[in-house]
Amino acid sequence: MPDEADLSSPGGPGGVVDLLGDAECWRLLASGGLGRLVYSSRYGPTALPVVYLVDEESVVLGTWDSALFDEDLRTGIAHAEYQVAVEVDQIDADAREGWIVLIRGAAHHLDGEAERAPFINAGLEPWIAGVPSHFIRVTPTSVGGFRTRQT
Amino acid sequence: MPDEADLSSPGGPGGVVDLLGDAECWRLLASGGLGRLVYSSRYGPTALPVVYLVDEESVVLGTWDSALFDEDLRTGIAHAEYQVAVEVDQIDADAREGWIVLIRGAAHHLDGEAERAPFINAGLEPWIAGVPSHFIRVTPTSVGGFRTRQT
Repeated sequence: MPDEADLSSPGGPGGVVDLLGDAECWRLLASGGLGRLVYSSRYGPTALPVVYLVDEESVVLGTWDSALFDEDLRTGIAHAEYQVAVEVDQIDADAREGWIVLIRGAAHHLDGEAERAPFINAGLEPWIAGVPSHFIRVTPTSVGGFRTRQT
Repeated sequence: MPDEADLSSPGGPGGVVDLLGDAECWRLLASGGLGRLVYSSRYGPTALPVVYLVDEESVVLGTWDSALFDEDLRTGIAHAEYQVAVEVDQIDADAREGWIVLIRGAAHHLDGEAERAPFINAGLEPWIAGVPSHFIRVTPTSVGGFRTRQT
């Protein structure tokens, strides 16, 4: 894919879009924060807010409680490696500018204590009292994104 | 499901979660704005930012250009009724408070002029120059959401 899509009409109104390379995607994700875990549940396509951080070239999510919104989030993805995506964006709708990064990969649940230890007290704990911390690592098989800007 | 999940530990630290009823979900969506179109592409789970408005009890999306990020967004969902979700959230990560609404339903592409007319100049046009406006209506078969707050 080209670095800049050829969809802008030169001289026309509006913005342009730049596709983001892998390095730029990782740079945008590096500070961690709020993203969305995207997956197919048995009820259909699902996206739920999650807090994430970047650990080497993977993303570790602290899930919101799985049973709250979509009963099968735990049963749906708790076993083995389920294909998921993590979407992170930062968009100024008034300015019509912003970026999105989407990574896709298998959801690896950090169930062992040794796996979990580095992420305890790393800011990924649930926001809801009484909900145990649960972490998911997504090592992406694809990374992509784009940025829109007005000219 | 209960109006308030029983996951809060009384007296413990942290927040609580309230499930949102349909009416509250629609109230939160009513002002329109930025959401995410969620679907399964042949590359896997996908979420892309979209601008939406509420038209009666459906959501009309102005899609970003479909070919930019995920080549099959158009071919993947342009035909007939594809199951999608629309996710809208407003979250203050520092305060650990916010809400999410997720609706699910079929994606109906507004291809006819009569269907499209009400949404021309309604704020759903693409942010990218040279990209034709394309609208998708999602009349939900399910509406749900929750809100977290600290106590």
